[in-house]
Amino acid sequence: MSGIVYRLDDIAARFGGRVLGNAAAQVSQVATLDSAQENNIAFLANSKYRAQLATTRAGAVIVAEADAEATELPRIVCDNPYSYFAKLSAFLNPLPPAAAGIHASAVVGKTARIAASAHVGANVVIGEGAQIGAHCVIREGCSIGAGVVLGENVRLYPRVVIYHDCVLGNNVIAHSGVVIGADGFGIAMEEGRWLKIPQIGRVVIGNDVEIGANTTIDRGALDDTVIEEGVKLDNQIQIAHNVRIGAHTAIAGCVGIAGSATIGKYCRIGGSAGILGHLQIADYVEIASFTLIGKSIRERGSYSGIFPFSSNQEWRKNAAHLRHLDKLADRIKQLEQQMAALNPASDK
Amino acid sequence: MSGIVYRLDDIAARFGGRVLGNAAAQVSQVATLDSAQENNIAFLANSKYRAQLATTRAGAVIVAEADAEATELPRIVCDNPYSYFAKLSAFLNPLPPAAAGIHASAVVGKTARIAASAHVGANVVIGEGAQIGAHCVIREGCSIGAGVVLGENVRLYPRVVIYHDCVLGNNVIAHSGVVIGADGFGIAMEEGRWLKIPQIGRVVIGNDVEIGANTTIDRGALDDTVIEEGVKLDNQIQIAHNVRIGAHTAIAGCVGIAGSATIGKYCRIGGSAGILGHLQIADYVEIASFTLIGKSIRERGSYSGIFPFSSNQEWRKNAAHLRHLDKLADRIKQLEQQMAALNPASDK
Amino acid sequence: MSGIVYRLDDIAARFGGRVLGNAAAQVSQVATLDSAQENNIAFLANSKYRAQLATTRAGAVIVAEADAEATELPRIVCDNPYSYFAKLSAFLNPLPPAAAGIHASAVVGKTARIAASAHVGANVVIGEGAQIGAHCVIREGCSIGAGVVLGENVRLYPRVVIYHDCVLGNNVIAHSGVVIGADGFGIAMEEGRWLKIPQIGRVVIGNDVEIGANTTIDRGALDDTVIEEGVKLDNQIQIAHNVRIGAHTAIAGCVGIAGSATIGKYCRIGGSAGILGHLQIADYVEIASFTLIGKSIRERGSYSGIFPFSSNQEWRKNAAHLRHLDKLADRIKQLEQQMAALNPASDK
Repeated sequence: MSGIVYRLDDIAARFGGRVLGNAAAQVSQVATLDSAQENNIAFLANSKYRAQLATTRAGAVIVAEADAEATELPRIVCDNPYSYFAKLSAFLNPLPPAAAGIHASAVVGKTARIAASAHVGANVVIGEGAQIGAHCVIREGCSIGAGVVLGENVRLYPRVVIYHDCVLGNNVIAHSGVVIGADGFGIAMEEGRWLKIPQIGRVVIGNDVEIGANTTIDRGALDDTVIEEGVKLDNQIQIAHNVRIGAHTAIAGCVGIAGSATIGKYCRIGGSAGILGHLQIADYVEIASFTLIGKSIRERGSYSGIFPFSSNQEWRKNAAHLRHLDKLADRIKQLEQQMAALNPASDK
Repeated sequence: MSGIVYRLDDIAARFGGRVLGNAAAQVSQVATLDSAQENNIAFLANSKYRAQLATTRAGAVIVAEADAEATELPRIVCDNPYSYFAKLSAFLNPLPPAAAGIHASAVVGKTARIAASAHVGANVVIGEGAQIGAHCVIREGCSIGAGVVLGENVRLYPRVVIYHDCVLGNNVIAHSGVVIGADGFGIAMEEGRWLKIPQIGRVVIGNDVEIGANTTIDRGALDDTVIEEGVKLDNQIQIAHNVRIGAHTAIAGCVGIAGSATIGKYCRIGGSAGILGHLQIADYVEIASFTLIGKSIRERGSYSGIFPFSSNQEWRKNAAHLRHLDKLADRIKQLEQQMAALNPASDK
Repeated sequence: MSGIVYRLDDIAARFGGRVLGNAAAQVSQVATLDSAQENNIAFLANSKYRAQLATTRAGAVIVAEADAEATELPRIVCDNPYSYFAKLSAFLNPLPPAAAGIHASAVVGKTARIAASAHVGANVVIGEGAQIGAHCVIREGCSIGAGVVLGENVRLYPRVVIYHDCVLGNNVIAHSGVVIGADGFGIAMEEGRWLKIPQIGRVVIGNDVEIGANTTIDRGALDDTVIEEGVKLDNQIQIAHNVRIGAHTAIAGCVGIAGSATIGKYCRIGGSAGILGHLQIADYVEIASFTLIGKSIRERGSYSGIFPFSSNQEWRKNAAHLRHLDKLADRIKQLEQQMAALNPASDK
């Protein structure tokens, strides 16, 4: 938290929107409507929570045009309160500065090239030939393999591992425990034993990608695994070798994407979903949580495959029939035939 | 293993229960009925395994009252053999001591306060303003962010990461690869690009919580993510921002809990289950493995949502009908109408 | 990439197969048919992709007997093009050498025994009594607990953690973020509080096992967790305490295997599948992705339990009926009885 206070009209001058109510109201931090204090500015992103405007103790709020008159609190009225809030919060909560320079305990290959403005933390290991761009922040304990290229302003939280030769664009963020470029799962059976297939592709990651904690992205078997620009990955996602994820796709936690799947742009994939290998998913596809995609999706739209839950007792009764749906269908067909025989004049 | 031997009557004097058979029998370690040797004490937690009493080579056993006469082996009879065993095993298998002090290779912020009795291992990094309580054990390679507060007797296994400002209570255990306080998955779309929403809440963890290997718990977006006292988390669980987990809830491996979900106290959640965002789960709810909870659960009880498996061949036949259940239901309705037309006198 | 070029006839002399076309053709690297250049050798593992032979720019290809005449490119004809390719690729892409010796920053217990030919990287910590076999490569930041035994030629990528007393055979590979031997999830409820059950078993891993990034294998509660020789584990798999996995079984990413499950030899388990605790799975069982195995499988074969996905709209219609399958079945039964009453002469 910056601690500095800002007037509403100064905020509007910077980020747009129009001020209603006391334009001189001062705030120093963002908060939820529910927990806001007088020095906070909250936001209403969805009119259905409008009732909270009556009870919030926020000093000011950000609202959409439709809610401009739903409160008398000092307010900024704008088109998209949620993205307005995102930008204001980023302004009020800058990342802590990281001093340029290489910690004495870091182990850096002689042929690595590290920008003077980069921060390299304690116990970081950087391999031969690696390139670290301007303003990168490599926190303690990261491992950067030989030949890795990081663009500018990349931020690696503690204990990220990047295997050799992978490439990250500008402004990439990787959280702790992320592993980029481990070997894909490539094996061939011969005479009762698995042979390992060397994984000689790379991982190539575009600009503005964020990768959540403990997510893994495997290197390609022969060609590269590719994450296009603006992709956002939550925690504990597994991305197999030779997957390609289109620009600006967002994927929630615990999703698994099998080898050589291709995901379009601007897709949204819910938590714990899965996508089988070699499938193709079109642009603008939404996939529900916990859904396995077992064949390619050629058209944009929303797709689900969630088994609905119930009490154990009901579940047992219903699930038992699931194992015999085929027989149930046969019995319906038989009844229809018997009915038709009884009633031969009927058209159907 | 302590190597020290104990008489059954001495054990009963310490942990309760009554001794039957040779009270002078000596044991030095716990074991399963199946693999026990003469110097081991085994336990029978479930009468249905009673037959194993006849074949075990254990020197003594722990049994419930109902099984008191099911063997002639030296035995301790008690109310809850499983918890008795837990306590006895903890006594016989104390954790290895960790010498107080800070390893020379650790990098500790000048304003961090570390109890003299704490152990700080090799290559640990501790940020400014962090507080480490008495008897904490911080194993090699952990990263403790600025402003983090650890209570007393916290045990962090190698390579745990705790981001800035998070708070852990007393006796918390976190296994290797755990990441606490990484950014939650908060993004807002504006003009075709995702904006990052700063995650300015913390993770606050109560006393006596254990966290399994590679589990991730994200910091709150605005308010905190909260894990109440006595919660037990297995490996590879993902807990999103602003989740609250009630006291003494136990969660098995690979579960994903989406943002702002609230889980009650004393719940038990099976492996690979999922809970969608913003839902509320009552106290004492049991959720089966592999079940997605897609709406709030207001009443205690056991809930399931598992698609039953079968041979591929049967699965193909049954799953095909699943896609047309709606039509099957229509056909049944039509048959009922036709039947009613044939038989107009019937009440139904 | 080695950079060295090889003639087809030299390759065949080394790995077998017969050469058709120009035996003096030279290649230096493997590639896919699609992206190959003139100095690459590609492979056709499945005749259905035969059309790609017409367009590839590869300098040579590996094909099966059935495809021997499907191209005029210089080619090696063999029984199993995929395993042939695996071996050739391993030959062309040897692992980078790792210099023998212990990095100055490593912290090694006085009683640990480390082979002279082993590589111990920066910031590695090795506990008392550990044994590291010949030609092991322990990359930076690994943590090897007290009493751990590694066979020969074990390769640990950066930031692997192995808890005390675990045993790994020869040629084991563990990728970054792997945690071997963390405590299993053993708790006993007593008077409203969970007691921790000490996990005093080990993890014992056979020869030639590979373990993917961020996979976790818990130590046994009393007896050991066992991974037999030749098992191949992808990323982000969770293996609970006292599991046994039979030799040469291959498991894809994100699978969870609950405590004390026993998996046979030569099984293949798809991504994100789950296996409940204490179950037994026979040898040569194939389990589809996203399938929960809720009871033991006694016979080899292929098994599935995937809820099929559809558009959200269709899904809603069909899933609603799932909650009432029991009632649908009752209505069918009732119709059958009514039909039988109408038609008493019918045999059925």
